[in-house]
Amino acid sequence: MAAAAVPPAAIATSTASHRDPTSPNAATTQPSKLANFTRAEFEDTCLRRFFFGLAFDPYGGTAGLWDLGPPMCAMKANFLSLWRQHFVLEENMCEVDCTCITPEEVFIHSGHVERFNDVMTRDTATGECFRLDKHLEDYFEKKLGTATATTPATDVANWEKLKNDVGSMTLESLQQVVDQFKVLSPKGNPLSAAFPFNLMFKSMIGPEGTKVGYMRPELAQGIILNFKRLLDSNNASRLPFAGACVGQAFRNEIAPRASLLRVREFTLAEIEHFLNPADKRHQKFSRVADVRIWAWNMDQQEVGADATMHTIGELVASKTIDNETLGYFIGRACLFLQKIGVRFLRFRQHRRTEKAHYAQDCWDAEILTSYGWVECVGIADRSAYDLTAHSRGSGKELSAREEFDTPIVVRVLDRKINKGVMGKAYGKDTGAITAAIMNLSDAEAKAMEATLASGAKGSVTLPDGRKIDITREVVSFVEKDERQTGRNFTPAVVEPSFGIGRILYSVLEQAYWVRRDESGKNEKRAVFSFLPVLAPQKVAIFPLMMKPELEAPVGVLRDEFVRAGISCRVDDSGAAIGKKYARVDELGIPFAVTVDYEADGTVTLRERDSSKQVRVPKTEVVGVVVQLCATIEPRTWDSVIAAFPEHKSSA
Amino acid sequence: MAAAAVPPAAIATSTASHRDPTSPNAATTQPSKLANFTRAEFEDTCLRRFFFGLAFDPYGGTAGLWDLGPPMCAMKANFLSLWRQHFVLEENMCEVDCTCITPEEVFIHSGHVERFNDVMTRDTATGECFRLDKHLEDYFEKKLGTATATTPATDVANWEKLKNDVGSMTLESLQQVVDQFKVLSPKGNPLSAAFPFNLMFKSMIGPEGTKVGYMRPELAQGIILNFKRLLDSNNASRLPFAGACVGQAFRNEIAPRASLLRVREFTLAEIEHFLNPADKRHQKFSRVADVRIWAWNMDQQEVGADATMHTIGELVASKTIDNETLGYFIGRACLFLQKIGVRFLRFRQHRRTEKAHYAQDCWDAEILTSYGWVECVGIADRSAYDLTAHSRGSGKELSAREEFDTPIVVRVLDRKINKGVMGKAYGKDTGAITAAIMNLSDAEAKAMEATLASGAKGSVTLPDGRKIDITREVVSFVEKDERQTGRNFTPAVVEPSFGIGRILYSVLEQAYWVRRDESGKNEKRAVFSFLPVLAPQKVAIFPLMMKPELEAPVGVLRDEFVRAGISCRVDDSGAAIGKKYARVDELGIPFAVTVDYEADGTVTLRERDSSKQVRVPKTEVVGVVVQLCATIEPRTWDSVIAAFPEHKSSA
Repeated sequence: MAAAAVPPAAIATSTASHRDPTSPNAATTQPSKLANFTRAEFEDTCLRRFFFGLAFDPYGGTAGLWDLGPPMCAMKANFLSLWRQHFVLEENMCEVDCTCITPEEVFIHSGHVERFNDVMTRDTATGECFRLDKHLEDYFEKKLGTATATTPATDVANWEKLKNDVGSMTLESLQQVVDQFKVLSPKGNPLSAAFPFNLMFKSMIGPEGTKVGYMRPELAQGIILNFKRLLDSNNASRLPFAGACVGQAFRNEIAPRASLLRVREFTLAEIEHFLNPADKRHQKFSRVADVRIWAWNMDQQEVGADATMHTIGELVASKTIDNETLGYFIGRACLFLQKIGVRFLRFRQHRRTEKAHYAQDCWDAEILTSYGWVECVGIADRSAYDLTAHSRGSGKELSAREEFDTPIVVRVLDRKINKGVMGKAYGKDTGAITAAIMNLSDAEAKAMEATLASGAKGSVTLPDGRKIDITREVVSFVEKDERQTGRNFTPAVVEPSFGIGRILYSVLEQAYWVRRDESGKNEKRAVFSFLPVLAPQKVAIFPLMMKPELEAPVGVLRDEFVRAGISCRVDDSGAAIGKKYARVDELGIPFAVTVDYEADGTVTLRERDSSKQVRVPKTEVVGVVVQLCATIEPRTWDSVIAAFPEHKSSA
Repeated sequence: MAAAAVPPAAIATSTASHRDPTSPNAATTQPSKLANFTRAEFEDTCLRRFFFGLAFDPYGGTAGLWDLGPPMCAMKANFLSLWRQHFVLEENMCEVDCTCITPEEVFIHSGHVERFNDVMTRDTATGECFRLDKHLEDYFEKKLGTATATTPATDVANWEKLKNDVGSMTLESLQQVVDQFKVLSPKGNPLSAAFPFNLMFKSMIGPEGTKVGYMRPELAQGIILNFKRLLDSNNASRLPFAGACVGQAFRNEIAPRASLLRVREFTLAEIEHFLNPADKRHQKFSRVADVRIWAWNMDQQEVGADATMHTIGELVASKTIDNETLGYFIGRACLFLQKIGVRFLRFRQHRRTEKAHYAQDCWDAEILTSYGWVECVGIADRSAYDLTAHSRGSGKELSAREEFDTPIVVRVLDRKINKGVMGKAYGKDTGAITAAIMNLSDAEAKAMEATLASGAKGSVTLPDGRKIDITREVVSFVEKDERQTGRNFTPAVVEPSFGIGRILYSVLEQAYWVRRDESGKNEKRAVFSFLPVLAPQKVAIFPLMMKPELEAPVGVLRDEFVRAGISCRVDDSGAAIGKKYARVDELGIPFAVTVDYEADGTVTLRERDSSKQVRVPKTEVVGVVVQLCATIEPRTWDSVIAAFPEHKSSA
């Protein structure tokens, strides 16, 4: 399945057109796997050129902890710079930088302490632990592999369905599957009862050893708890606006696997867009209405149908995507992913059974890799869940205010509190109890009024968890008319969350191909066809030969590139020029300049994907590469070919 | 004390000249505190405009955990971009991105589990914990405050000395001071015996709960453990080269304090420069030899003398700075800090008693703040400590090779191992024991030979800590001549480590000043005079009045700035233009464009520090601001004043 929003024109005018010529046409086909992709070769290239590697390698490494080497690290910096330009700058967002260490109360009230679990099981003989859904996926995968012509078709269909469904099942349902099929451990031993395992890393804050903290598993809570400060300090109290944050997140995965795709520490870039839940339109929606995406909605998934291509406008109009703002960010995310060179992309809606406890509607941007379609961006309407939870948890009002065009008269439930009685009965808790009563919803207040009227006691829960009895003497609720000029409300939040490691890994796979050696020797050579904006370094500089008189001009050129902010790589080794090209193709460096003995003041400039070379005056080459690598409206290679004479390589 | 390396010419050509006119001349004076600085006013501005704020504020915050708000966050991104340009790009470093979570064995072998401690004490009545050195500092500070004319001068001198020395004392010495002066807790209760507290946050990796991990307290180990991969994959096995890393570090401080200066989570930017310990020259040393710094060496500190100004060349020649490479990075760090606008800077050498367990020589770049001189960059020669420790710890050889120009003949101690005996005696440990014997230094081998010759048993220690007896039957050491074409050696490491939060906080304080209102109303207005390259946003855009016909040109201008990569802030509120200028001065935005009704196609462009305005054609203003904010050779405001007509404000 492929990103449809790249018009053929855009491909023709970018160097992307020179990528693996065997790749499917992104606009019309829907591959189920990457063409001509051999994972072992790909991984060998990545490890050998140190795109990434297992962290703490001399000690044998630790599962799920990976370091990024220089090429990937430069790509990450480029990614973040483009991301900030595309989202923070263009959308005028407020970026914050929040801590990873988070005190326990935050995740108690957000629901993570109770619910951020994976279901686990243990081999009762060896003590080894597994994630139960993954274990059952493998189990049914194997079972399907053993099916023969005589296996009943209903069985096969059932196994297929279970294999697809276990990923979104509850603990109880997973246990039922284990019991029904008498599933054993990989070593053939009985499994323990399924149990929940909290994925947050836990530590202690401060020297006393009494204050629990967690390493955040997502960035959302940090941004959301800054809502009031952002509203007051930076937005003249106006909604909607968005907070953004980039940083590390941590999940103590039970079974890290699939290289950079399921890891224990990773970088996220998250946005929390705060808006009025009664008005989820987006001012700039028209700018993305025509963006076309492959969408796989929950109903299609339930019945086993394929994804289909639509514009964002159609999907919002049909309510397939819940609202304009959610649609806007799906469209913006799609444009961003295309900008950095993602080719095979689809948007999958979360099914009813798998949605997070806070989500009203959620779509994942999935990118095709050799491991299948991988969730790389989650775009969720979290409704007012978080701010409501933290407002209750902290006892602080986390709301915004909307002024009406004309005042309205509404029937309200007035809370008549007897302060004298309160003070005597509750002492220093009076303030907290009063706040709790005032914060009751109208429905809750009506229910309490009915309870109190019947002579029974009501109750409220304080932020610290204590339940306090409330009697008739303390409060009564009376309906009355009230003139209102506006209202306070708890904003809803639409959250696009980008998993940077997963996206970059997917781009690595999609940009990878192998070509025959230019010299015709049939040697296979790896190439990463990154777009120039994302490429780890933009240009390589070579002396044609290892001669002292070429050293100075190479050094001068390097300094000029560095001053122009163009990262470059000099290879002044004694290797043949063809070998040098192969080395930088493996790093995905899009352009190479070779300095030779020509007396006409020119150098050769080579483009990676086409291997074509032109002769460019030394005085112009830095400027040309700057244009080719521009973030906005880069110059096309075709225009360079048209402007300068071709160079026929003798190498 | 001030950075001397800013020549007056450089000041005159940058907008820095317009900063607080009461500030001391950076080149010739040595302030002991910031002039005209009121911390309460400064903090109010920082919190109100959300430069930073206590994290998880609705829950009351947690000591030592701070969030950065939008202005500071943008400055951090600018800082990192400049840092990468100045170090990674210009010096051709290999940047890696390493995980925060680190398995225990790494910090066992680096020495952190045993030695990364602060000395703590506890109030035996209340259980409250203190950092003992800080508590004693406060104790002697108070004691000095109570000294009168009749207090013996020797006592006063002694208290003064102890106050300065406790920061670099051992646990035993600190305990002696407590005993001698019968020091009590702040509440007047007896103190517990001093005890060490490890500052690393501890957690468990994986679901089994058996594998201990720590959140890294520095980035060094991650880079150093990638040494071999960087050497092989990116440097054609040539030394010297440097690895770099930017990321979070964590220290469970006993007593977080001083705003962003002593916190529990912070961002570091570290460099590990690997070099041959026998040759610590630096190829580009001449480029920094003339950089002048205020240097405070260990001898000056011992005798209570002041820092003095010298060139890096002088300091290395006199061996005050241990070697050229250390001097090179001190010079580069100085140039970088000046580039981002640091004005009062000195370099302090670590005293013999305070040097870290691995450091051969260490200098801190200290920046003047209202809390005194604050260590912001540490530049240490860690010698071969880390690679040696990890080589022993992991059993992997972490060395580089040097080829000699001409082969040499050396007298070596040959290790004759009896493999048959070894295999029988040690079984599966044979390999590890053989490696341990081969890794013995010549001195160790000689000592063992003497032991074995005397009929006693020798021993080696395996990476897992077991001590294994070695007998005469297993090995003997015999001197012989050997022809060597090169040698393997363990590289030394020079490490510049930048504390980004501390540097940015210090820049905030040094850039802060208060001016009288331009309208002459005598209202005090806060200004942050950040250099354009570091400023959170580069330009503010205002319509002169809140009129619909000015909305479109403001929107067009904003889009043009965003496309040019210039971050901007639109204020289209109804506030008076003077008020709008004051709002953006408080954010340190260096330039402001006001769109008015002039029919000649011009807008006004205002510079923050001088408050001067010029009229610039609308078509040119984006280009002019791009030039003013350029990272390399920015245009000066004076040249803009000279090129365009002045605008006399009517506001």
